[in-house]
Amino acid sequence: MNRISLFLSFSALSLAAASAWSADTSSEAIASELRDKALRGESVAWDIVSELTTRIGPRPAGSAAERAAAEWSAKKLKALGFENVRIESFPMTSWVRGTERVEITAPSPQPIVAAALGGSPPTPAAGIEGEVVLFATFDDLKAAAPGSLTGKIAMVTRPMPATQDGSGYGVAGAARREGPTEAARRGAIGYLLRSLATGGERFAHAGAARYDGARVAIPSFAISEPDSQQIERLARLGEKVRLRLNSTASYVPNATSQNVIADIRGSERPDEVLLLGAHLDSWDLGTGAIDDAAGIAIITGTAKLIAQAPRKPKRTVRVVFYGSEEVSQPGDIPLGGIVYSREHKAEISTHILAGESDFGAGRVYSVSLPEGAQASPFGVTLTRVLAPLAVVPSRVPPGEGGSDVGPLEELGVPVFLLNQDGMKYFDIHHTANDTLEKIDPAALSQNVAAWTSLIWLAADSEVDFRALRSAAGNASPAKP
Amino acid sequence: MNRISLFLSFSALSLAAASAWSADTSSEAIASELRDKALRGESVAWDIVSELTTRIGPRPAGSAAERAAAEWSAKKLKALGFENVRIESFPMTSWVRGTERVEITAPSPQPIVAAALGGSPPTPAAGIEGEVVLFATFDDLKAAAPGSLTGKIAMVTRPMPATQDGSGYGVAGAARREGPTEAARRGAIGYLLRSLATGGERFAHAGAARYDGARVAIPSFAISEPDSQQIERLARLGEKVRLRLNSTASYVPNATSQNVIADIRGSERPDEVLLLGAHLDSWDLGTGAIDDAAGIAIITGTAKLIAQAPRKPKRTVRVVFYGSEEVSQPGDIPLGGIVYSREHKAEISTHILAGESDFGAGRVYSVSLPEGAQASPFGVTLTRVLAPLAVVPSRVPPGEGGSDVGPLEELGVPVFLLNQDGMKYFDIHHTANDTLEKIDPAALSQNVAAWTSLIWLAADSEVDFRALRSAAGNASPAKP
Repeated sequence: MNRISLFLSFSALSLAAASAWSADTSSEAIASELRDKALRGESVAWDIVSELTTRIGPRPAGSAAERAAAEWSAKKLKALGFENVRIESFPMTSWVRGTERVEITAPSPQPIVAAALGGSPPTPAAGIEGEVVLFATFDDLKAAAPGSLTGKIAMVTRPMPATQDGSGYGVAGAARREGPTEAARRGAIGYLLRSLATGGERFAHAGAARYDGARVAIPSFAISEPDSQQIERLARLGEKVRLRLNSTASYVPNATSQNVIADIRGSERPDEVLLLGAHLDSWDLGTGAIDDAAGIAIITGTAKLIAQAPRKPKRTVRVVFYGSEEVSQPGDIPLGGIVYSREHKAEISTHILAGESDFGAGRVYSVSLPEGAQASPFGVTLTRVLAPLAVVPSRVPPGEGGSDVGPLEELGVPVFLLNQDGMKYFDIHHTANDTLEKIDPAALSQNVAAWTSLIWLAADSEVDFRALRSAAGNASPAKP
Repeated sequence: MNRISLFLSFSALSLAAASAWSADTSSEAIASELRDKALRGESVAWDIVSELTTRIGPRPAGSAAERAAAEWSAKKLKALGFENVRIESFPMTSWVRGTERVEITAPSPQPIVAAALGGSPPTPAAGIEGEVVLFATFDDLKAAAPGSLTGKIAMVTRPMPATQDGSGYGVAGAARREGPTEAARRGAIGYLLRSLATGGERFAHAGAARYDGARVAIPSFAISEPDSQQIERLARLGEKVRLRLNSTASYVPNATSQNVIADIRGSERPDEVLLLGAHLDSWDLGTGAIDDAAGIAIITGTAKLIAQAPRKPKRTVRVVFYGSEEVSQPGDIPLGGIVYSREHKAEISTHILAGESDFGAGRVYSVSLPEGAQASPFGVTLTRVLAPLAVVPSRVPPGEGGSDVGPLEELGVPVFLLNQDGMKYFDIHHTANDTLEKIDPAALSQNVAAWTSLIWLAADSEVDFRALRSAAGNASPAKP
């Protein structure tokens, strides 16, 4: 062993021993140390995502499994030292996938990989059979004449691009939500959609369709990308393609979902709350690892690391594991995030800042702070702490902050986004393939590091994000 | 447009026009031109693989779909100008997958992605339920005491490495073929196998188990890699894992399979045959694109290109589309390749050389010629023609040449291999994900180019591979 490798060995040893806290107890020094601990994997994030997806598996909204996940979560949060741990239940109608089968019956029989869209009604026991009519886009379907699809199965074949920020999904979403209603309006007896997906593997990507009254209009399915291409090729060969659709899906009107809430209480301003959200429910096909056990793991890993800091932060850090994110409908299927904002209306003014982790475990590449915050001393410090993680300030504002914290934002709570790389997210999203192995432990640690940096700095400060926002709003040119 | 880009444009134009044949009609010049045509995609290979997998889809041995594929093939081969096109049928027992479901029942209910192994008997209608016993390797299962698995479900969890030459699959195969018998012998009521697979996606990889008498011993399933890891993690958490297995698989004793045979007749020695094989049957989950419509496309593209050469080759080029490759069993489920060698026994001495394409559409990286041929003038010329394709002589002899030409090799027919890169093959092999999109058209063209080079040179020669082999054998040190 030469001198240089000896030196490196000693350095490695001292790094390993460096888990003790440094003498500098400034807020930024602690943020940097928390960040580095997170990056070294010294958080509970991996254990949380592994145990939740392994013990419970799929957690459809309103199911016994979602309830079991909530109970497991409450127990785990208590064991980790969280305070004020509670489960807040709410009623919902749940939708249960049955057995389902989609097949080409002509020109020659072939099975199709499909998943009924969430909320889709069952077919008659004998199934539905009809000729398929292909539409390149949802707009083309909407341009079809009334009655032109009578007795037919309508299908939208539009492919979706991979985009880092997930915007491809945003554009494609209407075809899933509104497709069944628009197809039924023109006489269709069934509706098929090329999965809102990237990657080209033969998985159907589930997802909710919008209710038309108390249910989805007609039996509707997402089919895999290769199956969509197969049907398109058959049509190009000049064949009339007929399909048979079978589903025994059902509704459970008296089901229950729940939010799980837990706090790390602040030392000086415990009534001021930073809210960290993720959702506990998942689609039923996979084990909901990237969607959204990863988010549960990231926010829990963050809050627990902050609780382990050499001193408590001034403000309270709250985690909320939302129920019923995937399936909510206007009416009788509430969103966990709406329930939280309704039940906690009285405290909303004390919610300083809220953020949500619900885009898998891809690395964070940028941060979007509430208006006015990026240029403040808080934003400058945060930029410095995030820099080693390859995270930069975003030029795009945080918008609503996510589906579950959106209702808080509507009530005036400032929100932030830690933007994650989503280039691969829709390869896996809502499929049977959403399992633990798809999470890169190093990327998960980088997420916890970014969250810990931001949340510690905000929790250990007196920054008033509402005031910064108002000042920035006042400084902006007046709106016409 | 500057002069250089003008020059390039003219060059591109003249290249495009260069499909006409050069004045040099030497065998090597024609081989090189055929190779380049193939590489430019000027073969029927893509059309074949696209239309076969699209029109017919899955083609399980003994099914109506396999028959339809054979009829489509005969029609296509006639239309392409092949001569002596015939379908040679043979009886078999076929196995039909029913509906199937594997689920964890304890500690908490979860679905498992599984596929019954080929030949696996149905379960009782209520299914089979039992505790799972995990074995890290098949040898560990075989070391279990008689009776030690009574009432249990045995499961082998061994992962498989990706290897370029597919040798990882060879090592792993016994656990699929022999696993059900060995588990049943120790009292097990069901058998599960971590799929013989790479890539880690949540697909079950089908495949045949060996008959024990006239059926597989007990209901047996391959489960996806993530599901195997899930069950292993549950066990590591200290849980007793219980599973329920359901399958309505059935046997059809009076089914029929068939081989399809077609020739490009040689000009000078039409009775001397070069045999190019691939199999027409596929597993039932996917559309059998890489396994083995790709092989059908490669050999047909090769033979058709040779038929388009400026002169006919001296010898006959024969394609054989074998039936019943995936499922054969000693006894009542014959291998198409064995049927061919039995039915054509009288002609075997005129079979100069045989080769099989049954490893997807990954690029060819090396060639294994019959003993004695590599060092001959034929081998030297072939090496020169293959060099631009990045194909080198292999140091490994061709062995049996493949499952369908193996029986010919046993009867003394010299065989060759064009070895394909299989690093990704077992990501897809025997899954629902084996669809057209997994084939890279450029790699398919490179395969046709390599096959066309070899087959043209051999067909347009008088090389006696048997004599070369005998001479090489004589020159070798005597075996003890």
